[in-house]
Amino acid sequence: MKLRVLVIVMFAMFSLPVAVHAQTSDADDVKLIFDEALRNGKSYEWLRYLTTQIGPRLSGSAGAAEAVNWAKTEMQNIADTVWLQPVMVPHWIRGSEEDAYIKGSNKKRNVAVNVCALGGSVGTGSGGITAKVIEVKSIEELSQLGSHRIKGNIVFFNRPMDVTQPRTFDAYMGAVDQRAMGPSAAARHGAVGVIVRSMGLNAEDYPHTGALRYEPDAPKIPAIAISTRHADLLSQSLKEDNGLQFYFETHCEMLSDVQSYNVIAELKGSEYPEQIIVVGGHLDSWDLGDGAHDDGAGCVQSMEVLRIYRGLGLSPKHTVRVVLFMNEENGLNGGREYALQAEQRKEQHIAAIEADEGGFTPRGFSMTASPEFRNKVIGWKPALEPYGLTDFSREGGGADIGPLSKFNIPLIGYMPDSQRYFDYHHTKEDTFDKISKRELDMGAGCMAALIGLIDKHGVN
Amino acid sequence: MKLRVLVIVMFAMFSLPVAVHAQTSDADDVKLIFDEALRNGKSYEWLRYLTTQIGPRLSGSAGAAEAVNWAKTEMQNIADTVWLQPVMVPHWIRGSEEDAYIKGSNKKRNVAVNVCALGGSVGTGSGGITAKVIEVKSIEELSQLGSHRIKGNIVFFNRPMDVTQPRTFDAYMGAVDQRAMGPSAAARHGAVGVIVRSMGLNAEDYPHTGALRYEPDAPKIPAIAISTRHADLLSQSLKEDNGLQFYFETHCEMLSDVQSYNVIAELKGSEYPEQIIVVGGHLDSWDLGDGAHDDGAGCVQSMEVLRIYRGLGLSPKHTVRVVLFMNEENGLNGGREYALQAEQRKEQHIAAIEADEGGFTPRGFSMTASPEFRNKVIGWKPALEPYGLTDFSREGGGADIGPLSKFNIPLIGYMPDSQRYFDYHHTKEDTFDKISKRELDMGAGCMAALIGLIDKHGVN
Repeated sequence: MKLRVLVIVMFAMFSLPVAVHAQTSDADDVKLIFDEALRNGKSYEWLRYLTTQIGPRLSGSAGAAEAVNWAKTEMQNIADTVWLQPVMVPHWIRGSEEDAYIKGSNKKRNVAVNVCALGGSVGTGSGGITAKVIEVKSIEELSQLGSHRIKGNIVFFNRPMDVTQPRTFDAYMGAVDQRAMGPSAAARHGAVGVIVRSMGLNAEDYPHTGALRYEPDAPKIPAIAISTRHADLLSQSLKEDNGLQFYFETHCEMLSDVQSYNVIAELKGSEYPEQIIVVGGHLDSWDLGDGAHDDGAGCVQSMEVLRIYRGLGLSPKHTVRVVLFMNEENGLNGGREYALQAEQRKEQHIAAIEADEGGFTPRGFSMTASPEFRNKVIGWKPALEPYGLTDFSREGGGADIGPLSKFNIPLIGYMPDSQRYFDYHHTKEDTFDKISKRELDMGAGCMAALIGLIDKHGVN
Repeated sequence: MKLRVLVIVMFAMFSLPVAVHAQTSDADDVKLIFDEALRNGKSYEWLRYLTTQIGPRLSGSAGAAEAVNWAKTEMQNIADTVWLQPVMVPHWIRGSEEDAYIKGSNKKRNVAVNVCALGGSVGTGSGGITAKVIEVKSIEELSQLGSHRIKGNIVFFNRPMDVTQPRTFDAYMGAVDQRAMGPSAAARHGAVGVIVRSMGLNAEDYPHTGALRYEPDAPKIPAIAISTRHADLLSQSLKEDNGLQFYFETHCEMLSDVQSYNVIAELKGSEYPEQIIVVGGHLDSWDLGDGAHDDGAGCVQSMEVLRIYRGLGLSPKHTVRVVLFMNEENGLNGGREYALQAEQRKEQHIAAIEADEGGFTPRGFSMTASPEFRNKVIGWKPALEPYGLTDFSREGGGADIGPLSKFNIPLIGYMPDSQRYFDYHHTKEDTFDKISKRELDMGAGCMAALIGLIDKHGVN
């Protein structure tokens, strides 16, 4: 990076004799970047537009197409080159609103509950499904019950996320198998539908969507998420009413694949233009909210990395390439296509960074990388720690950059604080008003600072 | 602490031969406490009541009195003893709503701007004040201009908080002298009123109140805060219009002092009952919001420390005493009275912890303590770090516990993340909906965990 030159010049204005010999420290470089992000950051206004003017951006939707055009236009102001990389994506639609209620036996009243179809689910169609409910806490418990107990019933996966996990993603990883694998597991045992407890940590009134994964050899049965509060209600009702039935109706369906795009922009490296550092997030979102934290934040923070270079009048030594991936939520086709094209074109990637854990205050970076690279980043800790970056211990890069693992390069995930993420994740609550401008700017600063350090010191 | 016994028993259920010889680790103890806070925490529901049912609690107000009674009643369920400690407090009232506008010269229209009286300010009374405006960036600049430029005018202190400070409290400390000292400094030069740029980091439409400090020998002139957005507007307008005047009208006044109380509750120590660990926050708040982050959060987190002991069926070895201080915002009389009484009764305090930086995700603890004590806490880092507590480097305890410094004991401040604090601080936006249940519970866990470790290992 050419930060060195600028800092010397700035410093020289005050103290020439010392300055001309000065070597800028990593701490100085990092501060320069954060100062620019915090003073002149554009992330927040970009995100305001993306979420409130464009809105939800599920793959194949009009919103996704609009977001592609918007991002391309915006990045033309901050990049040397911008282009669209075609990728075919699934086109699942929710259809008209879901309807669900608990049907008590013995003339008890129906109780409406808040549900949403899981992404990728088949719909029930008009008339819906009505059946008895078998509650289980795991796929294992489902198997133990066996087909004679499950057949013809709705399976209700109700294992809560573990609230005692300090990092909420760990709680998510410990529960999300129910949503992803539960529907096919239940279908194999003859279930007619699946209800999954929402992936949320609080007592909430709204459901969390997210993708299920139908296995090719299992029947496709309709599946919904139910709000955590109504999951508790349903569980309690099942204890009190042996004859209880559950009704739900969904109108979702999978249409034909659609042409879409990864949006790519780069600043050409001044010394090693053929060596590429990727930074990105995913441009698609679920359909219920505006995708502010997931992952509008990661997109605008990635764009902001280029803007910071431009704002400071600096050029990176290596090429810095922003990739806004399409279709992370229900396919990962964008991530796969990007890696495929990189391979076919024999591009030389040296590192990839993804931001896809929300626009919250900084905590650290996770890494799938060699011990040597991890230690290198840990060596930068004195410069990064003042900005809240203290945790470099975790494994993981990001879903979209995962396919780049074949290049055997460091894959890095920006890791913000996780406490609030699952209040919003995949729900109608994931909207712009949940964004703190400063937290968003700080996150952009983190991404730019790490890229600056990689650009300065290399990856080896 | 008696955590040891319980953990051994729990562990013994699975693995008796090892367990009976097991010594519980600090990490086990800390986890036990956080698990209880995260599973069964009451902070959030307490805070919901305090903020939405009682509301603002400025010293001397009906809300403050109601909060005293509520806290006393609630703590009777979780403490061995609860009592009220009388303290006289100032009773400042805002009166009817403030009114202010920029009066352009040459028949330009008046432009209404958002302001609020600073706490403790005298009012303008009906008719308000109209005068020309002198903008300065500091008290020093004011002095350089001198009385001949200032006399008869309104002084506008417009130095923004430094957005590049990663920790927002540092930005606050770098700007708040304008609010605290500006009015008397301006009055000495003959100013007729003072406008202070709100202590906020963003472009906001609402003003931030907070206490001014009239010096005894300076005239008392009315002082207001103006929203950051309108501060920028006023500054721009001054550049464009030489004849500009400013009008504001406030109806605040200082009434006679009122009898109020610190609310105190304790769990008696099982081994060293005479040795007291204090944990607290301040029960009073400014009048504009509901005091959710400042400092309802610190109060309910302190209460939760006792509830966690009760919930786990544990007794501390030392006495753990919750103090909900009255009048931190505009006097500190509660903190002073508590320390005075402690001295007169020859109580033996061994440590004091305050939470007064909002109910945000954990970052660390600040300390005014010996290097030995600080190192002791740093030695506990492996147990605390998984919960986000990584920063033990900063100086400072808390305003209310400050007067306990005469006992030469460690004074400790719970230090949550600071990024969002000044979005809400002293404004109408400091309301319950800005609270994350998990962040609040995590903070309570931090306080309880540190007290648990101090109780287990002592302070020396």
